[in-house]
Amino acid sequence: MFTQIQFPSRSEYASICERPALEQGTLDTLIADVFTQVKKSGDQALRDLTISFEKREITDILYTTEEINLKSAQTDPTLQKAIDQAYANIYAFHEAQKLVTTKIEINPGVFCWQKATGIDKVGIYIPGGTAPLFSTVLMLAIPARIAGCLEVVLCTPAVHPAIFYAAKICGITKMAKIGGSQAVAALSLGTESIPAVYKIFGPGNQYVTAAKMYANRLGTAIDMPAGPSELAVYADSTAIPAYIASDLLSQAEHGIDSQVILVSTSAEIISETIIEITSQLISLPRKEMAEKALANSKFVLVANEKDAIDLLNEYAAEHLILACDKAEDFADEIRNAGSIFLGNYTPESAGDYASGTNHTLPTNGFARAYSGVNLDSFTKKITLQSISKQGLEQLGNTIIDMAEAESLQAHANAVKIRLN
Amino acid sequence: MFTQIQFPSRSEYASICERPALEQGTLDTLIADVFTQVKKSGDQALRDLTISFEKREITDILYTTEEINLKSAQTDPTLQKAIDQAYANIYAFHEAQKLVTTKIEINPGVFCWQKATGIDKVGIYIPGGTAPLFSTVLMLAIPARIAGCLEVVLCTPAVHPAIFYAAKICGITKMAKIGGSQAVAALSLGTESIPAVYKIFGPGNQYVTAAKMYANRLGTAIDMPAGPSELAVYADSTAIPAYIASDLLSQAEHGIDSQVILVSTSAEIISETIIEITSQLISLPRKEMAEKALANSKFVLVANEKDAIDLLNEYAAEHLILACDKAEDFADEIRNAGSIFLGNYTPESAGDYASGTNHTLPTNGFARAYSGVNLDSFTKKITLQSISKQGLEQLGNTIIDMAEAESLQAHANAVKIRLN
Repeated sequence: MFTQIQFPSRSEYASICERPALEQGTLDTLIADVFTQVKKSGDQALRDLTISFEKREITDILYTTEEINLKSAQTDPTLQKAIDQAYANIYAFHEAQKLVTTKIEINPGVFCWQKATGIDKVGIYIPGGTAPLFSTVLMLAIPARIAGCLEVVLCTPAVHPAIFYAAKICGITKMAKIGGSQAVAALSLGTESIPAVYKIFGPGNQYVTAAKMYANRLGTAIDMPAGPSELAVYADSTAIPAYIASDLLSQAEHGIDSQVILVSTSAEIISETIIEITSQLISLPRKEMAEKALANSKFVLVANEKDAIDLLNEYAAEHLILACDKAEDFADEIRNAGSIFLGNYTPESAGDYASGTNHTLPTNGFARAYSGVNLDSFTKKITLQSISKQGLEQLGNTIIDMAEAESLQAHANAVKIRLN
Repeated sequence: MFTQIQFPSRSEYASICERPALEQGTLDTLIADVFTQVKKSGDQALRDLTISFEKREITDILYTTEEINLKSAQTDPTLQKAIDQAYANIYAFHEAQKLVTTKIEINPGVFCWQKATGIDKVGIYIPGGTAPLFSTVLMLAIPARIAGCLEVVLCTPAVHPAIFYAAKICGITKMAKIGGSQAVAALSLGTESIPAVYKIFGPGNQYVTAAKMYANRLGTAIDMPAGPSELAVYADSTAIPAYIASDLLSQAEHGIDSQVILVSTSAEIISETIIEITSQLISLPRKEMAEKALANSKFVLVANEKDAIDLLNEYAAEHLILACDKAEDFADEIRNAGSIFLGNYTPESAGDYASGTNHTLPTNGFARAYSGVNLDSFTKKITLQSISKQGLEQLGNTIIDMAEAESLQAHANAVKIRLN
């Protein structure tokens, strides 16, 4: 069941880092049709498509405040308390990311600065399915609120009370009962009930992902390209196999396409971890799913720390656990990862739920170029500048010389006319 | 030639803010073919396509350091000095954007932080064409350098010495002679001479833009969707019509599809600006281009400042000049814009070249959801967390309760096994 690789050469790194190929565009006709229907018939299309795709009848597209309050109140009080602590931590970590506007006097009389403004209208998609992802409501709606987004529209077919509880405490402005690609189409195009938003966030199945890519081509921004979730663990001889096994399993239970990789300098740690996985697996409710995911897993023995760093940087994991001595020094060498978990007492599930960091992260190697969702994701940074007459006098010749060399005379004239 | 609109109602704002429809996907077959050829034949495909598209023969794909030095040295010394000042200002403004890593103790023993890491490999595309955009080399290569990108590959068919001078002082690591969609394909896929990069930046014609969108679908990140350049000016009665006219013309000379809009509370300012445009236009070398662009321009008289703010926020201009009293207060109300220029002595061309801000900005209304290029564009923000046993004890129940409510038992187990 476990693929073990020993002392791979550099030329083998690429194949170790390979993810399963993602389908490209095979759903495009179906998605284009959904968008056409939603554009043409708005809310009615959403009702029709929900019956046709989900066999679910809806009359009103949006939940009323009363409905949200009622559902929310059904959340188990212990769970409410847990969500409240997670909310506080996620809020604190994302609020600390706020841009502090500093005016810089670049030259005498030339002031430049940035300000961050929330994206006016954003949409959040939360799938139905086996796991009611109220934690993802927190991860997306809290930074939206801190950013100052004016309209935060949540679309979800999920009905777990905690989804409503999270939506309520996060100040969601509209909550719609719809799911699937039709929800993404509605957020992108707008209907009578659902405002068109400028950016769409959130996980989903292949239809939702394809619809987000389609919306993106139409001009709606999206959080990031999506792929199956993944975890890499680096373990040296100080690691604890039972803990590593529990982390690998927590990733594997997400779905059969989850990616799991263990890189270690210790053959003993690898073999003990495999034994631990086998024994912990037995009692898991999502055992079969995890088992299938583990069939894609890789256990890689490397000669030294340097090789581990190079391989992990090439892999660019969504989640990276460093179960090793001097984990912070090791982390300094990591250039590509979504989120890094240091030491033996920092399981990935801490960041999935409650430590404060975001769990919406780049998969499939996208961590080489993309950040995970953070406060930036919900804002635009606008640059501003204010120049005095004296400032322009100092800068004027530079602008004129460069504009004229680029054959843009009117650009030069805009300075000349002000200084003459 | 000038479209004048007086006191539009709110329902007319959407049509005022409309941009010309961008072509969607009509070039896809051609672009797909270019990518197929580059994937199959690498450097040889680049040679063949450069002959076929540009009638230009190239042997080596890359410039040597000696070639770059030689070409660079041909740059006019006055222009070198101008570029040096621009370099220093752009460097200073972007360096100030560096993330200051701050560890936050979210709960006792629970530490979370972010670090910014440069994207390892980035590509910059600079078009040939009428204007040799060495300024864009500065705007993209300086933040790449500050971010710590390891490989910065510049592709350009342009041969103006200042392009080489800019490439040299910015520390470009590789410079290739190729242009067009084949350059984008090479950056996305890699060839013998050109490394595959993780993110592609830079302007270009419809072929380059379509190739960037295509590369993006293959998994290469891009700076932002591109459209024709645009300028909105807000002017109250304190504005100076000759200055406004010079700014509108500096935008209009970019190309026949440039977008220009003047919003004012003063009918007099509008009519005087139109007179000024007509008189300044005569002597421009790119007069015909500017004239055609001005045919799409709009001059909008609004009843009051509030209407101007609402209209400008709906328009979401790439460049926004505020030629008005209390420009900073006005700017505080602007939620959507790429870059804002305050007061009578801050022409757009200052930001285009030398004040320090970036000139690669969101067009076509994308400023509603996208920032312009800044230091963030060249980095990923990685989150890190380190939790002590005591920290996990405090956070443990919250994680367990949430994971179990989401039916993710292995997530809960990863905590339980550490605390038992």
